[in-house]
Amino acid sequence: MPEFAEIVEVSARDGIQNEPKILGLTQRVRLIERAREAGLCRFEVGSFVSATKVPQMAGTDQLVRDLPAELRADAIGLVLSKVGFERACAAGCSEVNFVIVLSDTFSLRNQGRDTAACVALWREIYSAMPAGMRSCVTFAAAFGCPFEGEVTRARLEAVLSEIGDALPDELSLADTIGVAVPRDIRDRIKAVQAFAPDKPLRLHLHNTRNTGYANVFAGLEQGVSIFEASLGGVGGCPFAPRATGNIATEDLIYMLERSGISTGVDLDRAIKAAEWLEGALNIQAPGLVLRAGGFPALERVAT
Amino acid sequence: MPEFAEIVEVSARDGIQNEPKILGLTQRVRLIERAREAGLCRFEVGSFVSATKVPQMAGTDQLVRDLPAELRADAIGLVLSKVGFERACAAGCSEVNFVIVLSDTFSLRNQGRDTAACVALWREIYSAMPAGMRSCVTFAAAFGCPFEGEVTRARLEAVLSEIGDALPDELSLADTIGVAVPRDIRDRIKAVQAFAPDKPLRLHLHNTRNTGYANVFAGLEQGVSIFEASLGGVGGCPFAPRATGNIATEDLIYMLERSGISTGVDLDRAIKAAEWLEGALNIQAPGLVLRAGGFPALERVAT
Repeated sequence: MPEFAEIVEVSARDGIQNEPKILGLTQRVRLIERAREAGLCRFEVGSFVSATKVPQMAGTDQLVRDLPAELRADAIGLVLSKVGFERACAAGCSEVNFVIVLSDTFSLRNQGRDTAACVALWREIYSAMPAGMRSCVTFAAAFGCPFEGEVTRARLEAVLSEIGDALPDELSLADTIGVAVPRDIRDRIKAVQAFAPDKPLRLHLHNTRNTGYANVFAGLEQGVSIFEASLGGVGGCPFAPRATGNIATEDLIYMLERSGISTGVDLDRAIKAAEWLEGALNIQAPGLVLRAGGFPALERVAT
Repeated sequence: MPEFAEIVEVSARDGIQNEPKILGLTQRVRLIERAREAGLCRFEVGSFVSATKVPQMAGTDQLVRDLPAELRADAIGLVLSKVGFERACAAGCSEVNFVIVLSDTFSLRNQGRDTAACVALWREIYSAMPAGMRSCVTFAAAFGCPFEGEVTRARLEAVLSEIGDALPDELSLADTIGVAVPRDIRDRIKAVQAFAPDKPLRLHLHNTRNTGYANVFAGLEQGVSIFEASLGGVGGCPFAPRATGNIATEDLIYMLERSGISTGVDLDRAIKAAEWLEGALNIQAPGLVLRAGGFPALERVAT
């Protein structure tokens, strides 16, 4: 088990991208700042997609420019296209996260091209990567697809082999619709580690069926130490409409810190940031630690 | 990892005991029958406590008598006192589950005597156990106390040693207020296994801080194969008022079955039973699989 885990805060992207209440740029910047104040150090700040299709992500270019320089240095932009990649570079993101959906049906619906076309596009983006720009490739729907059902390890391995030597700085496995169980996590991690043993691997987990935190634990046991999470657990998938969202940053902090794994994040401040986000979105977030509180401290228990 | 896991369904006891809507005996019997129809085989059917203090549990004696004989043969009664034990025996329970709370403050508030007095009472009950009656001792607040904070492994070991040779058929570790993380689970399981290596161990987990299912996984890795769960995840602890309840039976089934661990329970029927319970209690249960559904099956996905 690692001694330290890194949390990539995705509330400003995956967290808010499907919410009916659309946050303005000022609020989106404030969200990232509050996450930073809690001690979070990496942020997926938005996606570079069509503002018509995803109005929640309109103006991500401007948002990145509006960020204080020290936050821009930790800003990850999600990209699904060449144009999006170029926008992320121009805006000043320090890192791009490119998504390859492992099932063709989902890929066609989500980004208008099948998996093979996404791999080809990634290779094109990879060859155009400017010096100093960090990159991650996320394999989405890596554990199951709402349209095609099972997504096998063989499918992941085939796509990895098509990526070949166009290796990003990090690889990420995403349980986009929240179907994975620990056995799947172990199995797919092994496939990625066999393909790229020197590349850091991160996990993007949803708690749709209450397996998200068990999957974190399975990832930790395989040596993974980078996890994406969203304050309050906000977020969801448009193709899984009744699903709850990402694993909650503060619930993840609770589990990790109580396990002796340092995160560098202050739990109480993360809870406050999650409460702020609940207010901004006018929702009750699915996270549980912001309701229950942390471990009972003697000074705050009723006696 | 075990190939088969056994679920002890506790909705008829822990699930409903704190709900404002009080179910009548007919509904309580129906709940157990619906759980049986889903394939569940063991049931904590109620507690033998004061009907004045816990009106939700009034008439558990009559409930056990009202059960069909084949269900009565799988009926576990929770007891906290000698009188409760005698009532459970007279009613025809096949098994009693006696609770020893590991922190004195919680124990005094919950059952009016401290931990040492509970151990002494257990030894008295143990010596009066009729032939053919099965028994379990549950160590409650085994991972933390809302009043005293940390509950150490040394505390568990001290209480185990006081139990001595008054060994029940099963031992159970309860995370009553939902504070445990996988590391704690492993550690305390090892303590119990060292004390009573031949006795089956079960886990009673709450998902208060989203660690419940990760704790199941940690238990499985230590060889535990008996888990208490509640349909819909209903239930809570009166001393943790904002806390969500037990781990949900159907969410547990999902994780286990997708992990290749057989439960003998039909997921769709368990979801239906959880929905029935939501209706009977007029609540939205915290379980997630009853919202999201099981793994996407090709015949039911939109194409």
